[in-house]
Amino acid sequence: MSEAADNTLRLALERIKELGNLSEEKGRLTRTLLSPASREVASRLMAWMEEIKMQVSHNAMGTVRGVLPGTQPRALPLLIGSHFDTAVGAGKYDGVLGIVVGLAALERLAADGIVLPVPVHLLGFADQEGVRFHTTYLGSRGVCGDFDEATYALRDDTNTTLSTFLALAGWTEDSTDIEYAPGSARGFLEVHIEQGRVLEEAGQPAGLVTAICGQSRVVGSVRGRAEHAATTPMELRHDALTGAAECLLAIEKMARENPPLLASVGKMQIDPGTSNSVPGVASFTLDLRHPEDAVRAEFLEKLRARCSAIVTQRGLKLEWRVVLDHDGVSCDVELGRRLAGALTTATGAVPRLASGAGHDAVIMAQVAPIAMLFVRCRGGLSHHPDEFVAEKDVGAAIEVVFRFLKSFLVGG
Amino acid sequence: MSEAADNTLRLALERIKELGNLSEEKGRLTRTLLSPASREVASRLMAWMEEIKMQVSHNAMGTVRGVLPGTQPRALPLLIGSHFDTAVGAGKYDGVLGIVVGLAALERLAADGIVLPVPVHLLGFADQEGVRFHTTYLGSRGVCGDFDEATYALRDDTNTTLSTFLALAGWTEDSTDIEYAPGSARGFLEVHIEQGRVLEEAGQPAGLVTAICGQSRVVGSVRGRAEHAATTPMELRHDALTGAAECLLAIEKMARENPPLLASVGKMQIDPGTSNSVPGVASFTLDLRHPEDAVRAEFLEKLRARCSAIVTQRGLKLEWRVVLDHDGVSCDVELGRRLAGALTTATGAVPRLASGAGHDAVIMAQVAPIAMLFVRCRGGLSHHPDEFVAEKDVGAAIEVVFRFLKSFLVGG
Repeated sequence: MSEAADNTLRLALERIKELGNLSEEKGRLTRTLLSPASREVASRLMAWMEEIKMQVSHNAMGTVRGVLPGTQPRALPLLIGSHFDTAVGAGKYDGVLGIVVGLAALERLAADGIVLPVPVHLLGFADQEGVRFHTTYLGSRGVCGDFDEATYALRDDTNTTLSTFLALAGWTEDSTDIEYAPGSARGFLEVHIEQGRVLEEAGQPAGLVTAICGQSRVVGSVRGRAEHAATTPMELRHDALTGAAECLLAIEKMARENPPLLASVGKMQIDPGTSNSVPGVASFTLDLRHPEDAVRAEFLEKLRARCSAIVTQRGLKLEWRVVLDHDGVSCDVELGRRLAGALTTATGAVPRLASGAGHDAVIMAQVAPIAMLFVRCRGGLSHHPDEFVAEKDVGAAIEVVFRFLKSFLVGG
Repeated sequence: MSEAADNTLRLALERIKELGNLSEEKGRLTRTLLSPASREVASRLMAWMEEIKMQVSHNAMGTVRGVLPGTQPRALPLLIGSHFDTAVGAGKYDGVLGIVVGLAALERLAADGIVLPVPVHLLGFADQEGVRFHTTYLGSRGVCGDFDEATYALRDDTNTTLSTFLALAGWTEDSTDIEYAPGSARGFLEVHIEQGRVLEEAGQPAGLVTAICGQSRVVGSVRGRAEHAATTPMELRHDALTGAAECLLAIEKMARENPPLLASVGKMQIDPGTSNSVPGVASFTLDLRHPEDAVRAEFLEKLRARCSAIVTQRGLKLEWRVVLDHDGVSCDVELGRRLAGALTTATGAVPRLASGAGHDAVIMAQVAPIAMLFVRCRGGLSHHPDEFVAEKDVGAAIEVVFRFLKSFLVGG
């Protein structure tokens, strides 16, 4: 590794560690929209961007941007970015890695005295995990004009709407709008930890994302009859929970028999929910993902029919509410070719994989072609304090983005 | 019906309605230990007892007692009672019916100028449902000396211990201890709604309880591995919730195949419990009841082994914590004979049934032989605003207790 590369990596690792200590909770990392810790991270990111002479700004939501105009400031810009908010009790790489790696690659260019022919915008989104308002992508949606009345009417746990929250807590001093219309950028690159084990099993530090899977989310409610557990004979019961349990096993079975279908029930609510009552209502969430949208839609219907049959058989009722239905997003072929070239030079291999999880790139696809680079993380563990990326893998990611950026020197 | 019986019934129905309106919540009936509504009920009960010249008192927990000395004030007393606290969002008969019916039967005696040769104590227990301290029978345990350090260390949802709560909220003015040592009473009679459908199906207004079932309560925790729902292939998962779902169905199956075994899972907790995560821990409660203690113990072990096998098969771990294990209590044969005689005279039939639910009589069995009279309630529904007992069934219950009391005139 060159001395410049070595210095850049050391700095990047220090920054990841430094930002990982900025939390709104004691003893664990939690950073939500516009919290003091989030503002502090935004301020530091802007200060670091200024060190390589980027023109920096932030909007009222706290999303930050650094701009390098390049030799042709009016050319369509290339965007690089990820988010700096976190889940509750999170790790320090999810999100932050993509911003820090992008910055490090730009520092490598600066150290080599390279000025690109295209403008580069580095973006740090203030909200992707959506902890505060129970929704995702507020940061990237904010810069794509993807807000409507329903978004502003979202409520946090204190029953405050997003519009009121922004009016009270918004970072308005020195803020400027950051906005991208469709077609206003030549591409958006996001670097992110894989949050899975494909790269680990392939023995590769980084890989090319081909597509971001679509996702359906359902709330299924099984309704039976709440009764006293001590006095209702088994044969007279209409137990909503055992009905739901049978649905869960059928869902699991269908997904197991049809890879790469992923079906997960992560949440369950029971009413009345006391130890001496037969459950009258059991509600569960279903998270369904598949790389192909049509296949996902087909299984969504099959699962509804299967759960409905199970529940009817037991004399129970099923409510099936599809609360989210996002189609998948393909990554851009031309940007992918550049990224594959950079991967080949930097790591010698181009593992290709689909992203099961959603990312800011899904939203940015509304305004520009997208590319994503996944970085290996230990055991696929994420949203956890033990989330870990090896130092040399961070170095490999910086090298890939550095080479990707240099590809714009020719034919940009 | 005689005019005296008619008047007594009308008064009893009015009192049930009146107490049903004394709640600490708006719009539904909830009455917990020492709340203002509970104290008001206690005061009214004492006032009504005084109307038939009972000597009344209450203890610091708010449990009330009325004493009729009879012609032999030093003879062992007969106790009659039930509780006047309620579950959350409860019906107006559970508990209160037993106190009001007992009082009505004593009023019938008074109206007929009958003085019994034995003292009668009418008890209204301040806590049986255990809403505030998540335990049951505090009222009856309090009069049986069944309190220890662990009881006083119980905490409510504000983290206040029972001892601190009693020190702050205890009803100490004019209070006197109410205490029964083992053997200090000739019997305890409790009248209670059935909370089941046996009497309804038999077409009988009231029935003789032969025993109160034993009960085991278990907290089972299935431990797997929490993962990202979007990125973990089905075959790599260790999903605690689907493991628990399989246990639930096995529990249900075993109970269905072995009547009258009752096995109920009423509560479940999932960690992390978000819609996009594979559950790492799924904990559930198991409530197990059977009229025979040995059979219950046998199935408890069978269910543990079955759940353990299911969970191991899936590469998960099971914790199995028995948090409660109460043997059943038999009702007294001699008191049962008196009650059967009263039932025959009053209703023409003596349906016999076991109680699945626990009652204050379970605790009072520590100090005296017990007898229980169940009263039919519509659809077996209880702990619900629609809980309902027909007026004529209340009348039948009063008639039975009146005849039961008169049986002490001979051979008392």
